[in-house]
Amino acid sequence: MQSFELNKTDIQRIKQALEEDENVLKALLKEYHASEIAILFESLSEESRERIINILPAEIASEVISEMDAEIHPEKLLEKLHPERRSEIVEELDYDDATDIISQLPEERQNEILQDLDAEDASHIRNLLTYEEDTAGGLMNTQVIKVNSSLTKKEALEEIIRQSEEMEEFYTINVVDNYNHLIGIVSLKDIIKSKNTVHIRELVNDDFVFVKAHTDQEEVAKLLSQYNLSSIPVVDDTMHLLGRITFDDVIDVLEEENTEDILKISGVSEDEELSGNWKEAVKSRLPWLVINLGTAFLASSVIRHFEPTISRVVVLSGYMTMIAGMGGNAATQALAVTVRRISLNDLTDNQAYRTVLKEFTVGLINGAANGLIIFLFALIYDSNLMLGVVIFLAMTGNLVIAGITGASIPLFLKRVGIDPAIASSIIITTFTDVFGFLLLLGLASRLLL
Amino acid sequence: MQSFELNKTDIQRIKQALEEDENVLKALLKEYHASEIAILFESLSEESRERIINILPAEIASEVISEMDAEIHPEKLLEKLHPERRSEIVEELDYDDATDIISQLPEERQNEILQDLDAEDASHIRNLLTYEEDTAGGLMNTQVIKVNSSLTKKEALEEIIRQSEEMEEFYTINVVDNYNHLIGIVSLKDIIKSKNTVHIRELVNDDFVFVKAHTDQEEVAKLLSQYNLSSIPVVDDTMHLLGRITFDDVIDVLEEENTEDILKISGVSEDEELSGNWKEAVKSRLPWLVINLGTAFLASSVIRHFEPTISRVVVLSGYMTMIAGMGGNAATQALAVTVRRISLNDLTDNQAYRTVLKEFTVGLINGAANGLIIFLFALIYDSNLMLGVVIFLAMTGNLVIAGITGASIPLFLKRVGIDPAIASSIIITTFTDVFGFLLLLGLASRLLL
Repeated sequence: MQSFELNKTDIQRIKQALEEDENVLKALLKEYHASEIAILFESLSEESRERIINILPAEIASEVISEMDAEIHPEKLLEKLHPERRSEIVEELDYDDATDIISQLPEERQNEILQDLDAEDASHIRNLLTYEEDTAGGLMNTQVIKVNSSLTKKEALEEIIRQSEEMEEFYTINVVDNYNHLIGIVSLKDIIKSKNTVHIRELVNDDFVFVKAHTDQEEVAKLLSQYNLSSIPVVDDTMHLLGRITFDDVIDVLEEENTEDILKISGVSEDEELSGNWKEAVKSRLPWLVINLGTAFLASSVIRHFEPTISRVVVLSGYMTMIAGMGGNAATQALAVTVRRISLNDLTDNQAYRTVLKEFTVGLINGAANGLIIFLFALIYDSNLMLGVVIFLAMTGNLVIAGITGASIPLFLKRVGIDPAIASSIIITTFTDVFGFLLLLGLASRLLL
Repeated sequence: MQSFELNKTDIQRIKQALEEDENVLKALLKEYHASEIAILFESLSEESRERIINILPAEIASEVISEMDAEIHPEKLLEKLHPERRSEIVEELDYDDATDIISQLPEERQNEILQDLDAEDASHIRNLLTYEEDTAGGLMNTQVIKVNSSLTKKEALEEIIRQSEEMEEFYTINVVDNYNHLIGIVSLKDIIKSKNTVHIRELVNDDFVFVKAHTDQEEVAKLLSQYNLSSIPVVDDTMHLLGRITFDDVIDVLEEENTEDILKISGVSEDEELSGNWKEAVKSRLPWLVINLGTAFLASSVIRHFEPTISRVVVLSGYMTMIAGMGGNAATQALAVTVRRISLNDLTDNQAYRTVLKEFTVGLINGAANGLIIFLFALIYDSNLMLGVVIFLAMTGNLVIAGITGASIPLFLKRVGIDPAIASSIIITTFTDVFGFLLLLGLASRLLL
């Protein structure tokens, strides 16, 4: 299989086949991997998706459903299927994927689906549904490979082969005692390499990374990527083995957290779906804009206060917007660098202090450089030296404030336990607007009138 | 090992131990995992890092160096070590990690390091140094597990155990023909489960994902995450097996690309190091601010053009900044959602068209809602109905423009092959500034004078 990118032709071929007879469609679908069909679904209507899911073998259909973007709502597709077909597909799903999808439905619909399943599957999924979505418990799969530490090499290998029948892939083998307490891990390689007479307890690595079920998913992602692990076991508070989280789930978490960061920093609610409709977008963004309007009233009240100054030096109104705008952009730069840095690593007090100091210096230099340009402009264009001095000072001052607030507000939020990305450009530009106007107009009314 | 977060105490303990005798330090370091020491390094001086690297066993030292953040320059640390010690450490590194670090040094220093290594290691690294850093070739490790398809189960297992001696972990076994052509993959599990008489060629899965050496790293990351693979084999143009890329490298790529996105969208050069000093920050941000200043002159020339209007209705200068500022924020919202969406998925023409239409609608509604608030304010506070109408229309119009430009500019850039994140808030707010002022002041000079 070559690296794959869906293009228009693929979508047209599928759409055409949907119009024709079932066998043509079936034959065409065989050319695609389940995850490719899941991507194709984004360009197809709900009806077409349902038809395709009903045609595919249950095993492939369940893979497609588990790979569908949450934004095109696999749970709604599942809901619409005939109960028998639905059970067939859900039973093919990994427990964690089944749980993720079913959890999006109202409770009564969840129960309807679960009561049609076989008892063991239903109980696994019911159990997983009790964990918060963004914790290790909500992320984990309860299907794990585990062997008792008392087994011999031969017994362990038989056990692993037996358990792995139902799993697509596994990366580490968990070693437990008679009470299902996790006591360590062992790799398949080490078992194979060992002598035939060996017991698992002699091979076990008991210096390993694990997480508790209530650990936040961001913490899980950090651990897995810090220790380069392909999977992490999940335990309860008394070390009973509950499940495992694999790197592919962590990659999804990272993408999700990164989307949230980029949205929040831009003043969009973190739960806006990227491909959502306009109603969701208005709901997610309007509150932020109204907050921004409130802060804009604050900034404009500064301007109103200085109206006499402006009416005497009208040319100030052109410079006002430059200084406020530049401050906003410089603050956004400092904010982005700081938020991203905090989200990748925790900073010590000393590092935090040096970050603010750095942004102060950057603001001073960038402010003076841009201040000089605008000073020369005022000198040449408005032939007014004092005006030049005023705007130079206001530009420099405002970019210093931009640097300090852009760095210190997210650092402060992190320190008090609030997500630093909430310090969006909307909040931060209030400071640069208000201070920019205050500086420019205050200096102007002192020095120019 | 419990989930780990470095705190002040750890750093203080290490700093204290650095002052005391070597044995105290050695004993203390034993408590930490290599990746933890790498994080500790961020709070230590270069001299302290060098001392610790020299004390640690070569195996651990090399792990620490490979886990060090690129921003604290492992290559400089390596450069400073005694040549013998350095070779010892480099030889313990995975080839891809060694290449990443050495590639940061000037060519003559690279050669000095390479000529001290044993011939095989040096040739592997020299080979890897020829690939571009951000391609599959630049990312891959040349240490792979591979077996010839003609081997029997027993021969293959022996071969795998032999090859895996030098590797920490492996996830898939590559199957090659007599000419090192990659013909498929097989899992260790499937080999173990098979009968003793079986040949590898009977087990091989030939429907697998692979990448060419020159494939862009972003494409590699998309494939690995789309197909949930723990590793991807890398081949040359004639299918010779060159190496493999593992999920942990892909996680690093994703974090790197996400950092670049968030920086670019905020008007910061993508190569600014998050923990860099103020000189680097000024170099990275000043050009963008100067561009912004240029566009601000454009916006302020609109204001200058309408100076007579402003001097007759001075209260307009307060509303000007509100309408421009709100437009900038609404544009940033639309931009963030669109850029993030494009970076996760490619959009069809139809999806792109609907995205712009959606942002138009969102702009219209959010504009009218905020316009209404500001209209009421003008009515009550300035007792001027016509002024209220003017600012209502300007607010609505500017937020529509914000939505359209925020969505269409990144979509256009993507279509012509430019990174859409370059459409930073700096570029986009030029539109909302200029149009905001034009709308407000143009309407005001028609309707209010």
